[in-house]
Amino acid sequence: MDRHIEVCLSPALIPHYNVEGSIVIVVDIFRATSSICYGFENGALEIIPVATVEECKSYEGKGYLLAAERNGEVVEGFNFGNSPYSYTKEKVDGKKIVLTTTNGTHAINESKKANTIVIGSFLNLNSICNWLETKTENVVLLCSGWKNKFNLEDTLFAGAVVHQLKDKFTHHCDASIAAEDLYLKAKNNLREYLFKSSHSQRLKELNIEDDIQFCLKQNICHVIPVMKNGKLVSMTI
Amino acid sequence: MDRHIEVCLSPALIPHYNVEGSIVIVVDIFRATSSICYGFENGALEIIPVATVEECKSYEGKGYLLAAERNGEVVEGFNFGNSPYSYTKEKVDGKKIVLTTTNGTHAINESKKANTIVIGSFLNLNSICNWLETKTENVVLLCSGWKNKFNLEDTLFAGAVVHQLKDKFTHHCDASIAAEDLYLKAKNNLREYLFKSSHSQRLKELNIEDDIQFCLKQNICHVIPVMKNGKLVSMTI
Repeated sequence: MDRHIEVCLSPALIPHYNVEGSIVIVVDIFRATSSICYGFENGALEIIPVATVEECKSYEGKGYLLAAERNGEVVEGFNFGNSPYSYTKEKVDGKKIVLTTTNGTHAINESKKANTIVIGSFLNLNSICNWLETKTENVVLLCSGWKNKFNLEDTLFAGAVVHQLKDKFTHHCDASIAAEDLYLKAKNNLREYLFKSSHSQRLKELNIEDDIQFCLKQNICHVIPVMKNGKLVSMTI
Repeated sequence: MDRHIEVCLSPALIPHYNVEGSIVIVVDIFRATSSICYGFENGALEIIPVATVEECKSYEGKGYLLAAERNGEVVEGFNFGNSPYSYTKEKVDGKKIVLTTTNGTHAINESKKANTIVIGSFLNLNSICNWLETKTENVVLLCSGWKNKFNLEDTLFAGAVVHQLKDKFTHHCDASIAAEDLYLKAKNNLREYLFKSSHSQRLKELNIEDDIQFCLKQNICHVIPVMKNGKLVSMTI
């Protein structure tokens, strides 16, 4: 199959990728896309990603859980932010959620021209890879980064996907080669490798080490969240 | 000294970096910034980077050598493009040059708000590092990439600079950590590592293996090209 796999290292670079007709995997490991995967695994019905806190607020009183995060913290007056521990079965089973985050929802919005947008994280790594193997479209792994800058954790995930799938795709971009090499260097202890990253330092100051450890677990979820008509739902395979 | 070193992996990401008051090192290893360094080493008086082929053409008959490259090839009707072998002493000593290239001049134009813009390549690696050590400003290493996408060779150079300087700077961004790790993986044989890159393949098709080998030589130049009033000149240290 003549299909490409590419890694886009920042939402700001998406205009330079040809996403029309492609599958875009949106990645925001700490913590939006990890929490979205965990939420669907625990029975959430739909998650609506919105760009602004105001837009999130506008769903108040309409039967949604409202989740808003900015700069790593829950925005005042909201039910929760993007800690995966907010997305347990007790909290989200059968619920609809509206979510805005610093980086993850921005990346989703930048990918709108794609054929299919799905949500990836270490939590559903194998499910994503197994599904991609069955598809014929080109794939763009979109790292959400931090305020449009490169970050390590999203790149490591992209590298993990490239590593699993590279023999199934004919072309790889330089960014996918770099992402795979960084993943191979880090894979025996992702947490330790990430200690040296700036974002990890930032997260440390937020006191969310438990979240970080959780987001680096692999394959505890089997769902593939997918965008349908502006909402994320769990894909039926 | 409380100064930062950051790596910007694409000219398209420069708006997300605070370059005002900083030193920006523009990097386009294959081949613009390598050729610029080699040209000054060989006695070029000034090199004017321009955005378009038309602007380059407008200097015709005014005493300049005209250099224009697009997609890796010399544009028809121009003296030369960006092969370092066009910038030998016989060709450029005492001459003024106007240059437009696919990626390198674009990166220079995107950096205009910087305090100082200098030109880096493996050819003048140590000169750049030694000079940066003496400065107090923050540093942004700007990889020109390929049409705004990430490329490996520029990232490896950025990693080499980070590796030499990291103990002298207090903060490093995630991109600089990644660049250094990739450099450390590749450093024993840069050419071999780059064989797997997409750009290297592209260059191979252009039949410029000699240029590639040349651009990976280290420290054969001692100049530091610097922007002054819209022109690159050799820095007097």
